[in-house]
Amino acid sequence: MKIHVLRLGHRPFRDQRITTHCSLVARAFGAEKMIYTGYKDNKLEVSISKVSTNFGGFFEIEYKKDWKKVIAEYKSNGWLVVHLTVYGLPIQSKIGKIRKMKKDIVIVIGGEKVPSEIYHLADFNISITPQPHSEVAALAIFLHEYFQGKELNKDFAKAKIRIIPTKSGKKIESTKNQN
Amino acid sequence: MKIHVLRLGHRPFRDQRITTHCSLVARAFGAEKMIYTGYKDNKLEVSISKVSTNFGGFFEIEYKKDWKKVIAEYKSNGWLVVHLTVYGLPIQSKIGKIRKMKKDIVIVIGGEKVPSEIYHLADFNISITPQPHSEVAALAIFLHEYFQGKELNKDFAKAKIRIIPTKSGKKIESTKNQN
Repeated sequence: MKIHVLRLGHRPFRDQRITTHCSLVARAFGAEKMIYTGYKDNKLEVSISKVSTNFGGFFEIEYKKDWKKVIAEYKSNGWLVVHLTVYGLPIQSKIGKIRKMKKDIVIVIGGEKVPSEIYHLADFNISITPQPHSEVAALAIFLHEYFQGKELNKDFAKAKIRIIPTKSGKKIESTKNQN
Repeated sequence: MKIHVLRLGHRPFRDQRITTHCSLVARAFGAEKMIYTGYKDNKLEVSISKVSTNFGGFFEIEYKKDWKKVIAEYKSNGWLVVHLTVYGLPIQSKIGKIRKMKKDIVIVIGGEKVPSEIYHLADFNISITPQPHSEVAALAIFLHEYFQGKELNKDFAKAKIRIIPTKSGKKIESTKNQN
């Protein structure tokens, strides 16, 4: 089962850090790819690629112009479209069902303005609490619930930098620039 | 048991959205207060206060100049200091212990540069995966694990706006401007 993330309506200046956090969360919590729409942002792509090169794994980031085409393509390939929105049904009531469907999933997260069609195109509109908070947090909680915490132990192949968990301080194992 | 969040080193321009997301996550996932250091940011405070007024509950945000004093005060009042950092020990190995201690907790989350003393002042340095991602996500996952998902059903008293979970579209109950 694959998980991709579709981030809608990225604006390079205003959204850069939030979209960067979304990508890093997608990668760290077990998604394989993030597609983003809105404005193309080379700085974002470079910074995410650097993290993947250094910390391992196979995460991709890609820009697409037309979000409707992206969703149509996922749907035609049999993927489930899960839209995270504060207006949706509670994750705790739906995550078991979604997991049991054993389908590839594209998780849609909005930018500032979410086109209303997305609510109808999605197979599930899911809320992570009915309180306003953050697409970064919503994505993390969805993936954490979907993978039931197993993503916390995910191994990232070919890492050049590994952080060694420690009680206090910083421990890093690095093979960077040692060829 | 109370939970507060201490956000270090806020910069009004660069960090505004990330710190806003941290505050909203703190509120939505069951913390009662966020203290932030760095630069005072009235816009941040106003926007968080508006959310609290509209969506209910008793969340507070407060600026303090000196993070060391803040931590010293929490410690002297018997609070547990939990620092979320990618370098720390895995949450899955420590959350049970932290929960069983039944203490009030201040969760420390860093800004761009975290002073190294914090690693030694903290009772626990905890990582949410050893991968780089986001303080917004780290805070959400910590609170979600700490409250074991119960925070998803938290009630927010005196809300003027309530979002009604729905399958597709947006349903809001509002008593705003109806006095």
